[in-house]
Amino acid sequence: MTTKSSKRGLKVAVVGVTGAVGREMLAVMEGRKFPVQDFVGFASARSEGKSIRLNDKTYRCQSLKKGCFEGVDLAFFDASDSISNEWVPEALNAGAWVVDNSSAHRMKPDVPLIVPEVNGHALEKSLKTSPSSRLVAGPNCSVAQLVVALKPLHEKWGIKRVVVSTYQSTSGAGTAAMDELSRQTVAMFNQGSIEPKFFPHQIAFNCIPQIGSFKENGNTSEENKMIEEARKLLEIPGLKISVTAVRVPTFSCHAESVNVEFEKSLTPEEAREVLNNADGIQVLDDPSKNIYPMGFTHSGGSVEAATGRDAVYVGRIRRDESTENGLNFWVVSDNLRKGAALNAIQIGEVLLRALV
Amino acid sequence: MTTKSSKRGLKVAVVGVTGAVGREMLAVMEGRKFPVQDFVGFASARSEGKSIRLNDKTYRCQSLKKGCFEGVDLAFFDASDSISNEWVPEALNAGAWVVDNSSAHRMKPDVPLIVPEVNGHALEKSLKTSPSSRLVAGPNCSVAQLVVALKPLHEKWGIKRVVVSTYQSTSGAGTAAMDELSRQTVAMFNQGSIEPKFFPHQIAFNCIPQIGSFKENGNTSEENKMIEEARKLLEIPGLKISVTAVRVPTFSCHAESVNVEFEKSLTPEEAREVLNNADGIQVLDDPSKNIYPMGFTHSGGSVEAATGRDAVYVGRIRRDESTENGLNFWVVSDNLRKGAALNAIQIGEVLLRALV
Repeated sequence: MTTKSSKRGLKVAVVGVTGAVGREMLAVMEGRKFPVQDFVGFASARSEGKSIRLNDKTYRCQSLKKGCFEGVDLAFFDASDSISNEWVPEALNAGAWVVDNSSAHRMKPDVPLIVPEVNGHALEKSLKTSPSSRLVAGPNCSVAQLVVALKPLHEKWGIKRVVVSTYQSTSGAGTAAMDELSRQTVAMFNQGSIEPKFFPHQIAFNCIPQIGSFKENGNTSEENKMIEEARKLLEIPGLKISVTAVRVPTFSCHAESVNVEFEKSLTPEEAREVLNNADGIQVLDDPSKNIYPMGFTHSGGSVEAATGRDAVYVGRIRRDESTENGLNFWVVSDNLRKGAALNAIQIGEVLLRALV
Repeated sequence: MTTKSSKRGLKVAVVGVTGAVGREMLAVMEGRKFPVQDFVGFASARSEGKSIRLNDKTYRCQSLKKGCFEGVDLAFFDASDSISNEWVPEALNAGAWVVDNSSAHRMKPDVPLIVPEVNGHALEKSLKTSPSSRLVAGPNCSVAQLVVALKPLHEKWGIKRVVVSTYQSTSGAGTAAMDELSRQTVAMFNQGSIEPKFFPHQIAFNCIPQIGSFKENGNTSEENKMIEEARKLLEIPGLKISVTAVRVPTFSCHAESVNVEFEKSLTPEEAREVLNNADGIQVLDDPSKNIYPMGFTHSGGSVEAATGRDAVYVGRIRRDESTENGLNFWVVSDNLRKGAALNAIQIGEVLLRALV
């Protein structure tokens, strides 16, 4: 981002602008007053011409084509790995900075994988040492909230081993997946067809212990991503971590049951205080009032729920007496926000501060 | 159960006969041809007179009153702890054998807590050493399926530590809870009232990390029950086990993500074989065909689902590389069946074999 772009403001692109995360990116940019001077939104050919609203202006959705990134300063990608593989190089060649939420480039040693609260310094270092690479990756949505919670605890007490089980919403798989939950739920009440199209099995009123495809080690691709990306984000190459990733019949937010063994002894009260003071975290932990993190709450409820909010919520913080220095907690966050759209825009903000 | 009762068949009582588990008990007794000669079903006063069908006969639902257990040989209780505290002694005094699914008596040292596949021998021993006690307890529904899966693995490789996260259906909390999920789900599509009555928060499209009430150690009553009962059932008083119990928006079946460290080394293939040969377990574990345990499947699906079936289903069996001799797996079972109704009737069958 040159001095020129800082004077005229930025030309920003979003690839995947009609998707669940793309739409959330627009809302987050507006909410955080991200300095967008000019904008271009890309989606698949069938969305071409659809109108997109951003900062009281209307733009027409475009499809990706040769030369489409000309003049773009910063491009956010939230699309498939194959789209990223094909079009991220095109955007980079056109001179744009790229924040890519796909998994196509995350684990490449020369690509910084960033959650600003956790390893923003890695991005700053990379900007100094290899400013010409201009590609930054955002993580898998379920690992983002996990490392935000683990990082401050690790700094203080040192992680020995983590066991995570996830409760992931359909929004993590996009709007078509949310539509399938909706359609199947209605069908369950009306003797309609439940036939799954998007998920491998019925998702309405069912839990599916498969996210992604199965890999040689018996884990799914989602589980392996969480393991590998947690290691890179926390900068603990040998992190001992076990993950079971499960799709549950909810529309928004991922929840995670997290069990950690630490090197040093700690109390739940100390953990609560450290988390309370950490960036991006909101502790919701008052069992006496049935207060703990959740995705949803009924209207008028006195408990803050995570849907549509930025924070990573942590609660159910308690000692695990089955091991030395063991701690259990429960993490909920809006996967479209911290897990994707918000995190990408936060990376954009770091880039702005560092480069403009 | 006297010779007399064996000649004329048994007079059987079910306390809580109109509840989700009570109704399932009737179905299980029919399905397994449990030798019922005469029957009496009890429920709260507002169900008095309701008709109950069992083995092509109709009975009228009765309310509990002094002397109501006269002539009863075997009484199954699936009601609240307070009902059990008040009426189990009455049934015992009337000379009946009692199988009690409430938690009122489970942890008493002189009451056998039984899952027949796991510790049927403890019941047989108790029948010999204290035949006059005549009270047998059934476990918490989420621990039953857990110990069925853990027991054969423990016998072969020795459990060091277990970390469990549960995905529990609303049926575990009874028909009123299932109705609440149903009502709130419909309301979500019709802008109706979501106001929770049964659960502490909205359950439709939401996960609630609270089952039961909070206890001093930060666990819920459900989590503490699972820990204590697993120790008693597996006969490992110091079993190291951590539990996080979560209610998910499903109608039937509990699912569990289970992580185990063993004393001795094992492979997933060996674990699969041992589980395959164990009583009460059905291994469903073929990732190449997206086959693993689930509560539900769409009609016409080629995958067996747990709802309405007896087995404890185990799958996603894989090495946990984060620890020595670590194994992950996923357990699903119909909580109304193995977790309650089936298990109670199976206990009844052991009693029949031993006593008649």
